[in-house]
Formats: sequence, C-alpha cells, structure tokens
Amino acid sequence: MTDLTSVLHAKAIDLGRLAIRATTEAGSGHPTTALSLTHLVTVLMYRVMRWAPADPANPGSDRLVLSEGHAVPILYAACTDLGVAIGPDGNRRAMTEYDLMTLREIGSPIDGHPNPVLGFPFFDAATGSLGQGLSVAAGLSCAARLDGVPKRIFCLIGDGESREGQIWEAMDFCADHRLGGVVAIFNCNTLGQSDYVSSAQDWEHLAAKAAAFGARTEIIDGHDPAAIEHALRIEDDSRPLAVIARTVKGWGVPSLGGPGHHGTPVKPEALSGVLVELDETARRLGVTDIGAQDFATLKIAPPAAAPAPRAAPHAPISFGAALARNPASASASAKKLSPRRAYGMALAALGDANDAVVALDADVKNSTYAETFAKAHPDRYFEARIAEQNMVSAAAGLAAAGKIAFVSTFGRFLERAFDQIEMAIIGGARIKLVGTHIGVTLAADGPSQMALADVAFTRALAHAKDARGRSLVVLTPSDAVSAFNLILAMAAYDGPAYLRAVRGDLPILYREDESFPLRGYKVVRSVEAPAVVLAASGYLVHSCLEAAAVLEQRGVAAAVVDAYALPLDAGPILEMARHTGAAILAVEDNYVGGLGSELAEASAALVAPVTVASLGVRRLPKSGRAAADVLDYVGLSVPQIATAAERLARSPGEATTANR
Amino acid sequence: MTDLTSVLHAKAIDLGRLAIRATTEAGSGHPTTALSLTHLVTVLMYRVMRWAPADPANPGSDRLVLSEGHAVPILYAACTDLGVAIGPDGNRRAMTEYDLMTLREIGSPIDGHPNPVLGFPFFDAATGSLGQGLSVAAGLSCAARLDGVPKRIFCLIGDGESREGQIWEAMDFCADHRLGGVVAIFNCNTLGQSDYVSSAQDWEHLAAKAAAFGARTEIIDGHDPAAIEHALRIEDDSRPLAVIARTVKGWGVPSLGGPGHHGTPVKPEALSGVLVELDETARRLGVTDIGAQDFATLKIAPPAAAPAPRAAPHAPISFGAALARNPASASASAKKLSPRRAYGMALAALGDANDAVVALDADVKNSTYAETFAKAHPDRYFEARIAEQNMVSAAAGLAAAGKIAFVSTFGRFLERAFDQIEMAIIGGARIKLVGTHIGVTLAADGPSQMALADVAFTRALAHAKDARGRSLVVLTPSDAVSAFNLILAMAAYDGPAYLRAVRGDLPILYREDESFPLRGYKVVRSVEAPAVVLAASGYLVHSCLEAAAVLEQRGVAAAVVDAYALPLDAGPILEMARHTGAAILAVEDNYVGGLGSELAEASAALVAPVTVASLGVRRLPKSGRAAADVLDYVGLSVPQIATAAERLARSPGEATTANR
Repeated sequence: MTDLTSVLHAKAIDLGRLAIRATTEAGSGHPTTALSLTHLVTVLMYRVMRWAPADPANPGSDRLVLSEGHAVPILYAACTDLGVAIGPDGNRRAMTEYDLMTLREIGSPIDGHPNPVLGFPFFDAATGSLGQGLSVAAGLSCAARLDGVPKRIFCLIGDGESREGQIWEAMDFCADHRLGGVVAIFNCNTLGQSDYVSSAQDWEHLAAKAAAFGARTEIIDGHDPAAIEHALRIEDDSRPLAVIARTVKGWGVPSLGGPGHHGTPVKPEALSGVLVELDETARRLGVTDIGAQDFATLKIAPPAAAPAPRAAPHAPISFGAALARNPASASASAKKLSPRRAYGMALAALGDANDAVVALDADVKNSTYAETFAKAHPDRYFEARIAEQNMVSAAAGLAAAGKIAFVSTFGRFLERAFDQIEMAIIGGARIKLVGTHIGVTLAADGPSQMALADVAFTRALAHAKDARGRSLVVLTPSDAVSAFNLILAMAAYDGPAYLRAVRGDLPILYREDESFPLRGYKVVRSVEAPAVVLAASGYLVHSCLEAAAVLEQRGVAAAVVDAYALPLDAGPILEMARHTGAAILAVEDNYVGGLGSELAEASAALVAPVTVASLGVRRLPKSGRAAADVLDYVGLSVPQIATAAERLARSPGEATTANR
Repeated sequence: MTDLTSVLHAKAIDLGRLAIRATTEAGSGHPTTALSLTHLVTVLMYRVMRWAPADPANPGSDRLVLSEGHAVPILYAACTDLGVAIGPDGNRRAMTEYDLMTLREIGSPIDGHPNPVLGFPFFDAATGSLGQGLSVAAGLSCAARLDGVPKRIFCLIGDGESREGQIWEAMDFCADHRLGGVVAIFNCNTLGQSDYVSSAQDWEHLAAKAAAFGARTEIIDGHDPAAIEHALRIEDDSRPLAVIARTVKGWGVPSLGGPGHHGTPVKPEALSGVLVELDETARRLGVTDIGAQDFATLKIAPPAAAPAPRAAPHAPISFGAALARNPASASASAKKLSPRRAYGMALAALGDANDAVVALDADVKNSTYAETFAKAHPDRYFEARIAEQNMVSAAAGLAAAGKIAFVSTFGRFLERAFDQIEMAIIGGARIKLVGTHIGVTLAADGPSQMALADVAFTRALAHAKDARGRSLVVLTPSDAVSAFNLILAMAAYDGPAYLRAVRGDLPILYREDESFPLRGYKVVRSVEAPAVVLAASGYLVHSCLEAAAVLEQRGVAAAVVDAYALPLDAGPILEMARHTGAAILAVEDNYVGGLGSELAEASAALVAPVTVASLGVRRLPKSGRAAADVLDYVGLSVPQIATAAERLARSPGEATTANR
C-alpha cells in the first residue's frame, strides 16, 4: 500500500527516528515534544508549504515559525531529510545527517533552539522563550501583504505555551489586521514540563478562546495526515486560522508516553529499544514497506514568485526640510523642539525615501509622534494597541522579512517587552526601538510611566556582540537635530538600535548638517583646563551646560560632553579629564547601570584611573506637578548638579554620595 | 424623589465633580476616564464592598484594585468624600478635600497613579503600567482563601487595557484556582488614548473572551446603578465573575465626549462650564435636590471578621536538619548540592515554620525545586503555569495581604516579568524572587534559556530606595549552605529580594552555621599580599578558587572574594586591594552591569581609584553540549580567568579586553 496517508506516516516515523537519535547524541533536548509534532511537521513541510529546501529564505516561500522552540529536533530532522540549505550567508550547504548529529555542539549552527543568525535561514526568528512565535508570524504576514506575496505563515504553538498572554495579544493583532495568511497550530499534547497542562489549555478551551479572539477554528487529530492536510489547506482572506491539533507527547513510543518525559533525551543504552518501539508503530500502521520510491511522490510545491523589486531607496530629506514640511513642527519655534517630534519627522522622511520602512506603535502614536508616519504611510503603519510584547515580536517578524521596522511607545512600556527585545537580538533581528517620555521629567504621571531601568538593561545587551559582531546601540539625543539624524543613522545601521526621547521640548544644540556616528559623542562645552568634566545625555546636557555656567561664576572650569551613545567611546573623554587632572561627573536621569557605569568601568580598568563620580536616580521617584519638583526630589536639578560638580572639582571622592 | 438610584446618580455626579476639579488643580491627569467609572466606583464603594473607610487596610474588608491606574482621580474623589484614612503607618488621618487638591504634588501621598507605599493603604499595589491589576486581585483572593476570610476582590480594567495579554493570563489563573471571589469589571468606554479601541476589545468580544476563559459573564450599562449593583452582587464560589460594563468616556459632560480627550485635564478657564454641564446632567436625571440627608442613607457594610491570628512562626530548621529530612538531597553527597535544591529545602523549612509563607512557580517546579514546598504545603502552593507576568503580579497581591510570597522560575523567564517586578517594587511589595538555571553553564539549551541580563536590570532597582528606605537585594550564592541561609534571610527581610541559583551541583563551601548578611560578602581565599583580588559570585567563586591555585603555581598571589550580594559593600574589598597595590578582577557570568560595574563605580569614585578589570559575558552565547564549551566560548573558563588575572597582576590595564 502506497497511499499518501501511509507515505506520510512512514515519513513521520522516519523523522521521529532522526529526532530521537539526534537528541540522544546531543545528550539533551526534547524528543517527546518533537514526536508530538511529527505528523504536523511532515504534512506542513512535505505537502502544504510552498517553499524550496535549497533556498529556505526565498522571499516567495511560505514560512514556518516554531513558537515552542524546544520541539526543534523534529524540524531539524525534516531539514536533514530534505537537505535544507544551512550555513553562513554566502556559504550555504545542504544539511546532512552529520550536521544533525552535531545538534547543540558549540561549533554547530544546529542550536538547542531555533536561531537564524547562527546559519539556519529556514528560521525567521530565535524562539525558545515561549509565547512569542505567533507575533513573529503576524509580522511576517504583514510584510508579505506589503510585498504583495500570497504567503502563508504557519506557527506551531504548544498547549502549555498558550498560557502566555502574548499568544492572545498576537491573536488580537491578527484579527485587527485581518491577517488571513496566519495559521496558528496548537499542539495539544496535554503535557507541560512538570505536570499535565491546565484544563484551561485543553483543546476545547483553546478552540473556544481562539474563536472568541476572532480566528476561524478547526479541531483535528494531529496524527491523522489527511485531517491535518485538510485543515491546513483551508484558506481565508480575512481571518487567521487556528488549528487545534490533538496530539500525543512521545507519539509512536509507548514507553515515552505520559508525564515525566519532558526535556529528557533517550539514554544511549535505551535507544535501540525505543527505535524498536517506533518500528512497532510502523508495523501497526502497516507502513513498513514504504521506501524511497514512495517518498519520491512527496512533491513540495515551489514558492510563489518573489515580489517585484522595490523602488531603490533615496536619501531622506534633511532636518530643515522636514521641519519646513511639518506644519505642527514648523509652527513651533525651530529653536526648541522635542526629540519625539523629531522622531515623527525623521520616520516620515525615511518612509518617503524607502518603501521598506514600517512602523508600529502601541496606542500612543499621538504622544510618540509615530502618527506623523502613520498619516503619511498608512499602509506601512501597524497599530499594535496596548500590547507591547506582541508589538516587539511582530517587528522582529517584519525585520526578518527585510523591513526596517520601527517600534515606538513610552520607554517605560518597552520594559514590558524586554524578553521579546532580547529574543529579537538573539535572533539577529535589526529592530529599531524608540522609547519616549523617558526619565523623571515626566513628573506628574509618576514612576509607573517613567523609563529609568531601561538604560541598565539595554546597556547590558549593547555590550554583547552577536555572531556577526553586531550589538544593540543605545541613543539618547539632546536635541531635535541629533534625534532626527540619529533616527536616520539607526535606519541605516545593519543591527538593532534603541533611541530614547524625552517628552519635553529642548533647545536646538546642533547645526542641521552635524553628523552623529552611532558610537560617538560631542564636546559641547570646551574649556582650556577643566577642573571637572560633566558627561550627560538628553536634556541633562542642557542642565549640565547651565550648571557649567554656574560653576564658571564660582571659578570652576567645567567641560560638558554630550555622551549620546552607549556603548561609549570613553577613552578620549577620560583622556580629556586626565590631561588636566580633572574628575568626571556622569549625570544621568536613570537608575544605575548607564553612563556612570560606562565611564567608571572604562576608567577603573586603567592602570591609573581617573576619578568618575555619578549623579543619577537613587530613589524611586513619585509624582510631582513640575519637572523641577521631581528633579529636586531625586537630586538632579541644576543647582544640585553644580554643587556636586564643584565638590568633586575641589575635593574629589566626596561628591559620589551627593544624591544617595 | 430619594430612591436609591437617584441618590447614587447624585453621588456619582458629586464624585465626578471632585475628580474634574482635582485634575484641573493638578494640571494633569485623566478626568474623562475617571468619569466613565463614576457609577461603577460609587456603587462599589458605597453599596457593594464590605469595608471601613477609617480602616482601609482592614484584613476582613473587600478590596478594590484599579488596574487602569490612570483613572484614579475618581477613587480619590470617593476616598475624599468618605474620609478614608491616609498617611504613613502609625500616623493616619482622614482624607480631606485639601488632600485631594494636592493631587500629584511632590509632597503628597495622592500620587498620579495608585501607590500604597506613599501612604494610601486603600490600595494594595501600585498600578499604572497596564494589565497587571487582575493578577494582583487574584493574589489577594488566594490570600483571602488561605485566611478563611470570605473577601471579594473587585478589579476595574479598561477596555483598551484588556489588550494586554496578562489580563488573560490572570483569567486563566482565576479559573484554575477557582477564585470565585474575583470580580473583573471591564470598563468599556470604547476609547483608548490615540483612537477608539479595536473591535477586538468591544463589549461583545470581551464578553465572549471572558466566557471562553472560564468566567461567568454579565453585560450591563455601566451608568445604571441598579444594573451595576445587581451584577456585582452575583456571587459564585468557583468561578470568577466578569462584568462587562458599557460606559461613556467623559460621562455627564458632553463637551468631553468622543476622541481627543484622553489624559487631558479641563483647563482652569473651562472648569466652570464643565461643572455646569454636570449640573445639567443632574437636572436631566432629576437628582438636583438630593442632599446630605439622602446621602446618609448610603450605608457601607462593614468588613468581615478578620482572620484568626496565625500560629506564631518559629525558627526554621537548619540546613543540616533540612538535608537529613530531604531524601533526595540526603541521597546526594552532602558535599555537593545545587543551590536550587537548597532553595526547595529552605522554602519547605520556612513553610513548616511560618504559615504566612506561600510559593508560586511557572510549570518548572521540578526544576526549581519549588516542588519540595508544593508537596509539603500543597494548600500554600499556587501553580501559575507558563505565565510569568501573572505569577509575579499575583505574588505582589499575596504579599500585599501579608504573605511571604516566593516566586520561582528560570532566571531567564523572570525577564518576562521585569515590568511587573518593577511595579511590585514601586508599590512596596515584599516579593521574594528566585531565578534558577542562571548563566551560560546551562550550555546545551542556548541563550533563550540563560539569565544574563537579569543582573544589570535588578542591580538598577537595587540602588533605588523606596519611600521607606528599602530596596531590592540581589543574591547569587556560591553553595547550598549560603543559598539555604540566604533564602531564610530573604524571608525575614522586610523588602523585596531576588536570589539567583545556578542549575548545577556545587561543592559546599561554608559551615552550616555561617551567617550571611543580606549585604555582605566573604573572603574565601585570603593571602598575605595579594597581587590580584578575584571577586565573583555563584559557581564562579569555585572557578576563581581554582584559578587562584593555578596562579599560585605561577607565583601570583590571588585572594578570592565571594561577592554574593548586590548592592555590595565594596569599600573593604577595594581597601584590601589598595593595601598591597593589587588590582581587582571581577568575574561574572552575565552581561555588563553587575559585579564589575559595582566595583568599578565604587573604585572610580575614589580620589585614588584601584584598578578594577572585569571578565564577563561580552558576546551572545549559543548552545554547547558541555558547560565547559560555552564557558570557553565566552571566555570564562578557569584557564581564561587565570590568564586574565595574571596579566592584570603583572601589567594592569591590559587585561580588561581579555574577553571582548
């Protein structure tokens, strides 16, 4: 018998065998989860998806996002069987069983969880922290629509995993944007790591939830090839499809069934017995005689035609031209403008110049000024509503599909998506993050709205290079010109970046044509022989300039540096201070772990360190009606800066506790 | 006419008037959102809730969690009208209109968003970052059940806010734990900040979603007092109640209706006109003649009897006793044990000694060893499944109700809840976080599972004191004894704490009776005249001891410090180095922003800084089959540590780029 169902069963069993062997070889991994997906993956990759194993990143191909990343051995097995192209850009090869058996080796691209950046272009995003894949799929689907490619994006989600709220954020997003190309497949194998999943995640509840969230739902036996294929071929232009697949964890291997087998590879000594169980399953299904000739009947449909090449991007207009064009901004005095308004102007300018630029925002586009772009390019603006986690992962999906995806919300609310930001960076996504309303000058709204811990977190990632030597760049511009130009630089940067924009208007500091390297700084007040060097970013550069004027009257010469970028090129700044025996005072409107740490670390590592003191936020702020009230409360007012700087200049070593 | 409905309308209008006046006085705030809640709040606080304005923290009273924190002026208005007790512990006073008019002032407890720690005990948690309140309510309900108090916990949630996935995580949790005392009230006023809410958040979809998530649902007119009261009085022992209230943003003031009025106070010059509109509304409803006598008929039902006092806690058993009692641990060699196993033992011991100790875990209790507690105290263990955000906020609710709430999962997955952790800390919640499987030695599973940015984030919070002078303590124990004793110390600490536990077994370093102050450190290798001081925490203390032995053979004297706590008492460590002209090498298995920053900042701030170099994770890790492979990959193997230390000892200033 060589009916299609039998061929698919036989293939599924073959893939299961490979997945088991690979995890045993690796000594870790999740073979039982992999087995629960074996039919779903087989039908997807050999029957339903339109794609090309030799060209897995083909822009016309359907995509598969494995949200439950730990199940990856079953995908690796299929990629091995199909000889999917792997390896670094420009040096691809067909994946072999040898590659598969390097699973989780330090030198291997066959990582423990999916990760495209290590040389596995079949994947679009790193997964493994649960609940993020459907958002990535949504982003890929948005990109496909923009490109006019009729792609379908399949996403495999664990039942236990569907407890993560982000899954439902993604469902809402798919419904809002009528992403009919998205197919969410829930792998209902009933078992989590430590126990059975809750009844809240059983197939009936999941189907009811998906329907309530606007999806078309299909409930199937996830080990019935015909039922799977039937369900997956349902297409709907306007609604996402949710396939609720009832599966068996450890399918085909009775001894691996039930609780207690999560994340445990088969021991080498037990391997042959387990493979015999799979043989028994093949016998039971009557598929032992399926061979290469039968498998050859499985023909993979090719990708759709790739999108027509986009119009070549041109250089975006300058700050001055954008200002002239923007009625709201032009009506403001050109001498004072908020960096967030500059963000809106720059984003719109980028959008004019390059079709690949897209933007997302979380119901604050009128505060972040993403609406400037949304109005100019409504087709490339994706309103993500109040769901930051989905927004960031969807942006990672858009970026994976070649878009230059900007994401904006209050900096504080990006914290909701720190996990998603880290996963995007792990996967090599070149996302462009913009956090507005940063720091304590937000004042009246209080600490629940103030980004203060974002610098420490993002600086940590900024010092961790990815496989291609890139890392996150963190930018806090001090005026609208630098904000505008840095947004352009972020778009041009082949890596992830985060720009922080304060709410208030700031005086223009720079000439329109001033260039801002992504890792640069500017000396904005140079004095002959500084007794103290004030280093700051954002609006605090202006505070430091004011403090320096106060200091001058007190006979203390102070230089001021606009350290707008992290990582910082600290060497020359330290050298400037050392040259005249000056101390450095880092002034920052955030919790520890930012500019002060950056300079202190660079200094302390020297044979003869320069004194670096730091003035930052050392207490939880609260509401105050005026920015000045809260600045005073946390110790960052101009007089407080001047006092700390003077004390440091006159007697270094005492100023460090100025605002503790 | 003095029927109840009219009285409630009149009261609602009075509260609306106060909320409008307060936000105008403050010059910021969200009066229109407040107005959409005016009837719901009136019926809740004057009719349905059992509580005592003079004793808002009464342990027998029903609770109200305002998830959409920005609507708080309407609650403040009610608290003003009722003279709710405010002010610091031990110095409460009845809230007056004078207090209300200090809304958002720097010296006022009437903050921009709800915050109990500033002196507003009516609240249980800080809210304002959206989507967290229902989880807090769930935690409060769990605590009430443990205390045997028939409390109801009401939670007001915005329709736009319900887009946050955490709301649905909380719904699942309520269903799982049959929290019939929880009442989720969705305020469907149809308007977000920048636009109308999505149809995915309209009242019909919300009702369908809540039902699919297992709640009993009621749909009402949110401005009909009788309908509100009828719905809110429905009690169900086993299922949460979801009340879908259709409301009007800017209710009662036609000129504030429709889009464009979010977060905008009425300008002083427009105030009288707006108040006239409210008068018109009162006239239209025929309630202009309702007066004090009528309002006096609104009697608030008193709280339930407070729970019987708990058995007095006794001292938990010692590490040795716990080890002897724990079969799994005892079967392991007592000379080597993982800190996470010590966590389980300590948690169970704490549970035996103190009924207030509770625990939550996110489907990894068999990995974190929270299961040791879960088995010993099943009634006090709350399985949170794979939904970390809800878990942390629910723990904040439990903590607010007086429980000592431990939360555990992989350290990497706590990152999913960084926003919730910060909100818990802002609100003064004494949550106890435990993150296991930290750092790169997790190896095979790869970076999606490795906590590496957690140190930078939590250290930032650890340096920010709250209104009571407390802050987060971050602990990374180097053996099972210190892990056990630090867990006990965390439980005793009147503030938030985070303990990081590596997966692997570690040799026992300390005697069972060694004491571990929460801000201490230990010199574990003392040498006469160190040429280098190695500072580390966790398993790296052992690596440093090995490296020191290697260094000794090379003629380099190295001291080793177990710097298990952040913030660190860095002074004596710097002094130890300075004493012999030694340099310090901080060795840490995390991204920048941890121990290296802590020591560098302390050193650089000195007049004559000590050289501090840092060896940490400066590239994104990937899978490796053995811990050694990944340690080598990131530059943290023992030979690499020894080489960096030797270079530093012989020629400080060159070792700093050792693993960049």
